[in-house]
Amino acid sequence: MQNFFYSIPTKVEFGKGAVKKLPEFVKEFGTRVLIVYGGGSIKRTGLYDTVIKLLDDNGIYHAELSGVEPNPRVTTANKGAKICKEEGIEVVLPIGGGSTIDCAKAIAAGAFYDGDIWDMVKDNSLMTKALPLITILTLAATGSEMDVFSVISNMETNEKMGLDGYVLYPKYSILDPEYTYSVPKYQTASGTADIMNHIMEVYFNGVEGTYMQDRIMEGLLKTCVHYGPIACETPKDYDARANLMWTASWAINGFISCGKAGPWPCHAMEHQLSAYYDVTHGHGLAILTPVWMEYTLNEKTVDMFVNYGQGVFGLSPELEKYEAARQAIQKTREVFEAMGLTMTLRSIGIEDKSKFEVMAEQAVAAGTESCFVPLHKEDVIEIFNRCF
Amino acid sequence: MQNFFYSIPTKVEFGKGAVKKLPEFVKEFGTRVLIVYGGGSIKRTGLYDTVIKLLDDNGIYHAELSGVEPNPRVTTANKGAKICKEEGIEVVLPIGGGSTIDCAKAIAAGAFYDGDIWDMVKDNSLMTKALPLITILTLAATGSEMDVFSVISNMETNEKMGLDGYVLYPKYSILDPEYTYSVPKYQTASGTADIMNHIMEVYFNGVEGTYMQDRIMEGLLKTCVHYGPIACETPKDYDARANLMWTASWAINGFISCGKAGPWPCHAMEHQLSAYYDVTHGHGLAILTPVWMEYTLNEKTVDMFVNYGQGVFGLSPELEKYEAARQAIQKTREVFEAMGLTMTLRSIGIEDKSKFEVMAEQAVAAGTESCFVPLHKEDVIEIFNRCF
Repeated sequence: MQNFFYSIPTKVEFGKGAVKKLPEFVKEFGTRVLIVYGGGSIKRTGLYDTVIKLLDDNGIYHAELSGVEPNPRVTTANKGAKICKEEGIEVVLPIGGGSTIDCAKAIAAGAFYDGDIWDMVKDNSLMTKALPLITILTLAATGSEMDVFSVISNMETNEKMGLDGYVLYPKYSILDPEYTYSVPKYQTASGTADIMNHIMEVYFNGVEGTYMQDRIMEGLLKTCVHYGPIACETPKDYDARANLMWTASWAINGFISCGKAGPWPCHAMEHQLSAYYDVTHGHGLAILTPVWMEYTLNEKTVDMFVNYGQGVFGLSPELEKYEAARQAIQKTREVFEAMGLTMTLRSIGIEDKSKFEVMAEQAVAAGTESCFVPLHKEDVIEIFNRCF
Repeated sequence: MQNFFYSIPTKVEFGKGAVKKLPEFVKEFGTRVLIVYGGGSIKRTGLYDTVIKLLDDNGIYHAELSGVEPNPRVTTANKGAKICKEEGIEVVLPIGGGSTIDCAKAIAAGAFYDGDIWDMVKDNSLMTKALPLITILTLAATGSEMDVFSVISNMETNEKMGLDGYVLYPKYSILDPEYTYSVPKYQTASGTADIMNHIMEVYFNGVEGTYMQDRIMEGLLKTCVHYGPIACETPKDYDARANLMWTASWAINGFISCGKAGPWPCHAMEHQLSAYYDVTHGHGLAILTPVWMEYTLNEKTVDMFVNYGQGVFGLSPELEKYEAARQAIQKTREVFEAMGLTMTLRSIGIEDKSKFEVMAEQAVAAGTESCFVPLHKEDVIEIFNRCF
């Protein structure tokens, strides 16, 4: 186990009716709020009206920025930061899924930066502080409601990169599983794949001596395997939505990587798919994951796959180790397929291999060569090819 | 799953050499420290000298209170609070195990209370604030380094009761697994039993819809089952000590009971053993646990025991459910025995049953009747009898 410093400051109000606490949370920091959201789904579900009424009834001023994209653009974040400066905003309040929260994080940091937020994305050290963030989550997936990351896209340069800093931990997150009832099957499936991959990136990173963390990760993965398909079929199953929602937060808030930090190969590769083709992040991960597993299965990794198969899928300890590993990988693929996710890049609109080389170069630049099984440019290209 | 509010503010520096960060942590709150510790073990291991040098080198004033008892007395806590008031203490720094930290918590709260700390123990609402606590842990067991509880004994009245409040979360805890190398086998075993029971109290409380929490608890329990016996036999096994140490914190810091809160029957019963006979808390729990399990095994609980057996001990899903439950309970007993713990009250110095009735009354007063399987006075007496 590695040495580590643990500190997760985000406070969470979880459950039915949790939004009632919003005014109390806001007033801890001020009375001027920027609401950030994406399309109109929060208006259709009534959540928008609920929030507006709570703010108005409590004398809290609100500006708003809508239209945040699924892979949020730096241009949108810059717009939000401008509003914060002009309107003296004290709290940034994203209502939505990971993209909306990621955009709000960039806005919260951008409020203290004179210049293009993309400068900060490229050099995180320029980010020194951020406005307090209070999030209302409507999609269990990225874990942005309880983590330090913000992934921002620059469509001019085809880059998707991250802001990463302690100041980006939301102060409060409001998690009501009922707000995810309206999430369509495809987004539920993609979100679940995203959660699972966050855990796998840590689980398979080769750090030893982390028995406790590994067993906890198996528990989180089992939860996804159990409830992902249920939530896809029965969107108003409260326990399914609640378990997935809380699992999403703990998959990436920093806890499981305590003692087990390391680079994330699948995300480094998937961010290129999103950056070049604007695909749904979780679906891209679902396609990459089993292929990456097969590609990295070797004498150095096989025992991890055996543990994974036993701990998550209950595979028999009697199986020969490579057989167990292969079954575990196949079962992973089957979970994604059971949620209706297709398993090729072609199926998500990537029609030729012309950009694989430049995408592979960017994945390598994002750190794939320092992973437990190093992935050089030709390895990444081969993985993209096998996914095609 | 129940609604909940999550907030665990304690920051943890974990690993070899973690104590180096102490001066930085102290200075966040002040420069006047009360060191609290028990017997001389921290002097024998050199930890005491290390801490004194770090404080002196950084111009941090330190008073000290030594001699904290294994079941810390309210009289000792009162002494500490008096020092805080007289010396203008700004940070309370316990170095030791759960008893020392519990005592330090009572001191930290007592520093702001004019009167006997026992008043606050009996009426927690009298506790409004506390001095900042920074803990250095030398025993993986109670989880006091990351929780809100302080258990204090009053030997005049034979009462062992708890302070419980958000202000008691330590600000920082320093967890270096090497500091637990010198913990004797008996304390290691008792500590592991304590950790396990903290998890079981939540696992078996009957709240439904908490699949994720249940799987995580099984992971934490597996860690104890795996590493408890190893740490007993090979005290300087770093991974065993590290995994037990981090598991101890997460067994009780509030995370696993999010969505699954409920009363704790075994602790309510064990606190009577400690209060009347000053027994080692974890050993008392180890004796009570399997008997309590057998006593509460019924149609309402059997499925929980089956999950427990499969999730923690890998029992076959093919077993008939009561057979699986009984095997799971037997395996629990075997874990304690494998660590050298005896399994009767007689073996820990309780020579007759004369106090069982009054002890049962106090256990009931501590809440056993509101547990998932309610334990009335006659039930508690019967459990004590079967443990005898």
